Amino acid sequence: MDTSTSTPYSIRPWQNCVDEFELIRRFFTREYEAADVRVGVGDDGALLRPTAGKDLLCVVDTIVAGVHFPLQLAAADVGYHAVSVNLSDIAAMGGRPRWMTLALTLTEAEETWLRDFAGGLFEAADEHGVKLVGGDTTQGPTTVVTVQIVGDVAPENVLRRYGASVGDGIYVSGTLGDAAAGLSLIQQPIPETPAGRYLMQRFSRPTARVALGQAIAPLASAAIDLSDGLTADARKLLQASQKGGIIELDKLPLSAEIRQQFAPAECVEMALRGGDDYELCFTTCVNNHARIMQVAAEQHIAVTRIGEVTAGDGLVCHNAGKRVDDRHNGYRHFAAGPDQ
Amino acid sequence: MDTSTSTPYSIRPWQNCVDEFELIRRFFTREYEAADVRVGVGDDGALLRPTAGKDLLCVVDTIVAGVHFPLQLAAADVGYHAVSVNLSDIAAMGGRPRWMTLALTLTEAEETWLRDFAGGLFEAADEHGVKLVGGDTTQGPTTVVTVQIVGDVAPENVLRRYGASVGDGIYVSGTLGDAAAGLSLIQQPIPETPAGRYLMQRFSRPTARVALGQAIAPLASAAIDLSDGLTADARKLLQASQKGGIIELDKLPLSAEIRQQFAPAECVEMALRGGDDYELCFTTCVNNHARIMQVAAEQHIAVTRIGEVTAGDGLVCHNAGKRVDDRHNGYRHFAAGPDQ
Repeated sequence: MDTSTSTPYSIRPWQNCVDEFELIRRFFTREYEAADVRVGVGDDGALLRPTAGKDLLCVVDTIVAGVHFPLQLAAADVGYHAVSVNLSDIAAMGGRPRWMTLALTLTEAEETWLRDFAGGLFEAADEHGVKLVGGDTTQGPTTVVTVQIVGDVAPENVLRRYGASVGDGIYVSGTLGDAAAGLSLIQQPIPETPAGRYLMQRFSRPTARVALGQAIAPLASAAIDLSDGLTADARKLLQASQKGGIIELDKLPLSAEIRQQFAPAECVEMALRGGDDYELCFTTCVNNHARIMQVAAEQHIAVTRIGEVTAGDGLVCHNAGKRVDDRHNGYRHFAAGPDQ
Repeated sequence: MDTSTSTPYSIRPWQNCVDEFELIRRFFTREYEAADVRVGVGDDGALLRPTAGKDLLCVVDTIVAGVHFPLQLAAADVGYHAVSVNLSDIAAMGGRPRWMTLALTLTEAEETWLRDFAGGLFEAADEHGVKLVGGDTTQGPTTVVTVQIVGDVAPENVLRRYGASVGDGIYVSGTLGDAAAGLSLIQQPIPETPAGRYLMQRFSRPTARVALGQAIAPLASAAIDLSDGLTADARKLLQASQKGGIIELDKLPLSAEIRQQFAPAECVEMALRGGDDYELCFTTCVNNHARIMQVAAEQHIAVTRIGEVTAGDGLVCHNAGKRVDDRHNGYRHFAAGPDQ
């Protein structure tokens, strides 16, 4: 058994065979001194050794240039982002990410772009000990990045999307709306500010809450990661649990930076509907509140109780204790909105 | 533990959210009565139960419209093809394919195309008991299909690309060049013939040699699947083994159909250089020849000894026992070429 192995990064030249694609091999071939990656360079697939007694987690996400990220996003950020969105799915299941593959479609093999992209990709992967074990590079009319991550989890510690009970608190990690705010700034040719740079980074380099997901797995009754915006994703969690919920708008955690750059109502709008935050949203019973807060403190992550699971279905918003109409962006019309 | 589960097919609407994409969920959500797929619809990732003592195999391949397959290829064939190219990689490692994910980028969600595509995808998957356990659908400027398959294999039965010894026979399964021949026919507006239809199907619906790969795993010294053409792929196997090889052109297995449609020299050209055959090429010592032939007979698959592993490096071609110059397509100039 060889334990000193590296990445089998296959190039499939077909009709439009490009010699430059050879350099891709250079950027994406990593040597791993790891017993769980048993395959050497250039075989037909990766051979991986799973941990006995663990179940596997398998997630996949694609980002398309001009659709999921603006064309002007730096290559390193594209790589980082592509990995993070997948890490976030693993986090939402309470899992440990282990191995990833990369399917990369490019218009051309531009050396600088590729080197930077690989840099960002490995930066996100290395932060969580994820190994790139395979890939495929193809030519196409635009940049399409598909990352798949295989992870594992102890069967008794799986975080599921359903399982919320009436009375459970609804919690989120971090601050909300920053990514949507950052994306809007990336797309506008306005002078950069420190706050603006922070928000743009929150879009381009989301922080997957992997350690938090693992720590709350024994405590949370249900969890989801926030990719499509709080209301959309919280609804999915509540629907899966066959419950309803209340979100208290004045409890939404907003960063100082978003409040500095945007009007209060815009902040709430982005916190509720902005996608790409990749924070965790989860539910847990009141008895676990103190332990959740302890976990958050240990990990130096803000965790905020923003609402409560109710009987029935549907998600309603409250502001200062009173119900507001979330449909048709009704909360937009409310006063100055929340400002913590 | 819930064993009656189905596919978590996530749709990530972002900027260009299309309501029609909802119908994708319909086509790609399958109910599986399987203990090895533990996750229900719509969670953040698939939860899979591996088999104790097996190692994992992980392969990924992308096909892009207009690059890896012609735009006029039927949707069902695109789906079938996308799965088969990955199954072939699992076959080349001697593995059992188990679970797959699909990352599908589409210009639009056209109902008929999607239904047919899903039909072909599941047809290929069902032939090998592979379960679709996750996916991501995105919008983009062209059709990009990335399939990843996770399989498993007993550690002692892994087929590797290296390990060929001097004197080992070089074998291939099936017949060679059919896919390249079929692709050229698909791209030409010529009247269809039964032979032509056979060849086109050999491109659009390659037969992944999964059972053969498993059966030869204890016998073969090295193996690779033929995606880029015999000479290119055989060279990879020999290079990985640090050996050379002789291919006997008059031994190349050619189908009756290719010989009916193409001149002998064209047949050899396609057999040597045509991609997408997805047959297996492997090496084994002379003592195993009879057992290999027995396996082939049991599986009703043609397996042909086409050459021999030699010392040194490089691949040379012989014709009727004499060396011919393979470089610069030298064999093209030889007589009528092989005709079995």
